[in-house]
Amino acid sequence: MAVSDLRPVDVILEKRGGAEHDPERLEAFIRGYLEGSVPDYQVAAWLMAVCWRGMSDRETAQLTRVMAASGDVLDLEGLPHTVDKHSTGGVGDKTSLVLAPLLAAAGATVAKMSGRGLGHTGGTVDKLESIPGFRSHLRHEDFLRQAREVGVVVTGQSKDLAPADGLLYALRDATGTVESLPLIASSIMSKKLAGGASAIVLDVKVGSGAFMKTPAEARALAEAMVAIGRHAGRTMRAVLSSMAQPLGRAVGNALEVQEAVACLRGEGPDDLRELCLVLAGEVLEASGLPRTRSELEALIDGGQAYERFERWISAQGGDPGAVDGLALAEGREVIRAKRSGVLAELDALAVGRAAGVLGAGRARKGDPVDPGVGIVLHAKVGDEVARDEPLLTLVHRAGRGLDAARGLLDGTLAVTDEAVAVPLVLETGLHGA
Amino acid sequence: MAVSDLRPVDVILEKRGGAEHDPERLEAFIRGYLEGSVPDYQVAAWLMAVCWRGMSDRETAQLTRVMAASGDVLDLEGLPHTVDKHSTGGVGDKTSLVLAPLLAAAGATVAKMSGRGLGHTGGTVDKLESIPGFRSHLRHEDFLRQAREVGVVVTGQSKDLAPADGLLYALRDATGTVESLPLIASSIMSKKLAGGASAIVLDVKVGSGAFMKTPAEARALAEAMVAIGRHAGRTMRAVLSSMAQPLGRAVGNALEVQEAVACLRGEGPDDLRELCLVLAGEVLEASGLPRTRSELEALIDGGQAYERFERWISAQGGDPGAVDGLALAEGREVIRAKRSGVLAELDALAVGRAAGVLGAGRARKGDPVDPGVGIVLHAKVGDEVARDEPLLTLVHRAGRGLDAARGLLDGTLAVTDEAVAVPLVLETGLHGA
Repeated sequence: MAVSDLRPVDVILEKRGGAEHDPERLEAFIRGYLEGSVPDYQVAAWLMAVCWRGMSDRETAQLTRVMAASGDVLDLEGLPHTVDKHSTGGVGDKTSLVLAPLLAAAGATVAKMSGRGLGHTGGTVDKLESIPGFRSHLRHEDFLRQAREVGVVVTGQSKDLAPADGLLYALRDATGTVESLPLIASSIMSKKLAGGASAIVLDVKVGSGAFMKTPAEARALAEAMVAIGRHAGRTMRAVLSSMAQPLGRAVGNALEVQEAVACLRGEGPDDLRELCLVLAGEVLEASGLPRTRSELEALIDGGQAYERFERWISAQGGDPGAVDGLALAEGREVIRAKRSGVLAELDALAVGRAAGVLGAGRARKGDPVDPGVGIVLHAKVGDEVARDEPLLTLVHRAGRGLDAARGLLDGTLAVTDEAVAVPLVLETGLHGA
Repeated sequence: MAVSDLRPVDVILEKRGGAEHDPERLEAFIRGYLEGSVPDYQVAAWLMAVCWRGMSDRETAQLTRVMAASGDVLDLEGLPHTVDKHSTGGVGDKTSLVLAPLLAAAGATVAKMSGRGLGHTGGTVDKLESIPGFRSHLRHEDFLRQAREVGVVVTGQSKDLAPADGLLYALRDATGTVESLPLIASSIMSKKLAGGASAIVLDVKVGSGAFMKTPAEARALAEAMVAIGRHAGRTMRAVLSSMAQPLGRAVGNALEVQEAVACLRGEGPDDLRELCLVLAGEVLEASGLPRTRSELEALIDGGQAYERFERWISAQGGDPGAVDGLALAEGREVIRAKRSGVLAELDALAVGRAAGVLGAGRARKGDPVDPGVGIVLHAKVGDEVARDEPLLTLVHRAGRGLDAARGLLDGTLAVTDEAVAVPLVLETGLHGA
């Protein structure tokens, strides 16, 4: 259908009435918006009708396809076993830094554009930029050559990756239509589809520090995203993992890079290692490179994963040897257990916010992040602690945000007589068939 | 609340979540729109959220008040017993032409701005303009003097009467948000409130030729409008009346003026006379001028109502004596009964559309209407008819729209062995207490 044949109000009325859009009409409506022939007030009314009535998998897939096609689409054809991972975001989540070289060591190609994100701590690119010399902008041909030669390359997201998503997101933000499962799923997947990988694993976080607070919500989002990917011909896997407490023991950009490197050397915290092994197993299987758990462990413990990390960082101008000595801020403030017992709660949202006010995150797009601040956790939920034993250390720069961080954490570190440790991985293998 | 303190997205989110707006916040949001500080895309999203979640009586009343106050508000203070009637629109509805002089003859003041309307036939002002010389534009001081001296004056609606309603209506039209009970009620009542009368009767039509297809829908609309009027301090009455078949026996502008005059002379069709007596009784009682049915009948049959009609039309430059000889188009096409029996169906919508294609209505704002065309009904539902007896006559101008009109009526004039006549007045006296 030509855009000019469309009466946009009919599309709005269709959705208002709960009907399913014909794919060509939906495409004409969204393209009309991008090209300026459908005004924003009509799209705003349609977005609210979508919040009301929802969208079918077919509609959501079509919306995503149109957004993915609105700008550059990475052509990764010819690269072997292209894989990608997306996490819905959590506190202390540095899995991408571990997963990318691990997957490359297993024979897959990780050629990834990663967002900086708005949140309590920076995104993957912010974390990588705490390594001196690391270049997050590469020319297209260098990006592809590194993918071919090293098997792993990660850069910042191009402004031209799914620009429609940015446009639509700004309108959703202004019109109270952000919270909608198909719109959230479509927004995430439009960038993944434009990213070009043929197998994608989604790590959907559940819990206080995550966007999705319950497993049911997380599963619904996972299923919606898996359906979109499948409609677009990608092989999909999704995992639900807990974000009741932070992942690993380090929160903050340089601290997280150090922890990721420790993990790649076989010294990382158990939960981080566990999640990386699960995600790697899922996406490699989806990509036609099945690896057993012990094969993956051997890639870490035998040093191949870390070696691939060194080649990757070097290829992008960074000094992998500098990671151990990354500059941290000098301030230290230790928060101790008020009694002996078992740590029962370590609220991910509170820890994330506290790291944010110390300077690890950004409130507005374009704000700088401080790579050297953050929080180190000395105990995790279920650990026994003695009275006055350190629970966590705030790494601060000359006291900046310290009072606010203490206030955010106050009352959230519960030590009780007994506690149940939360399982980390709640569900695996969601693939929509 | 100052408009500048408002975050419009919070108002949208409130309504999306199903909450009730604080009156000051709602006023700030709507005034912000009128003043340009709240963009149309935010109002569009809010309108769809209103379609989804509805509005409370208090919110609807507040929205109406803000729209009524957005332009000129007629000040009828000092005029005795100001009354107004609003009909939700139907086919063959010429009650205003009868009611206005009848109410004035009973001692009330009818100072009314009337819409032209978009529909199968013209509005009250279109009908009045079929009388040679009739002036539908009066200066404000002439309007008020005539109201005082004659007790009745009817003009076209000023562009400055509730201009916010026009603005909002255009946005609703473009965003699929026209159909919403509180928005419809608010749109109608904003103009009634700005019209200034202290007692208002609403004639809410039900049936195929009306906007509301069932008594339940009509009652809900009536109750919403009554609640708005009461919140604004007006005395309200509402009546539900049937629009399953046209009102009276004439459809078309000049034809309807003639029928209204016949009614004022005591010769009108029963259903038109009945509805006028009911509406007059309701609004006079609301206005503190209670009149029995026989008192009202005496005003018609004794000639006082017709005399008031003559004074009214003369005061606005028209020749009341010319009504009997109004120029009709010359074409006549008679549609006859195909069998003997009882007329079981005379679909108001089909008759209205047929009159429209003959030229009696307008499809677009500003189109001219042809005062001389229309349809005369020779039988109404429940009447016995013989085979080949005329059921209705199409009055057409040189065949314009004749084939289309015949096509619209084809199959809608059912003659059966028996039929139940529909009651005209379904409910009276709705006043919200």
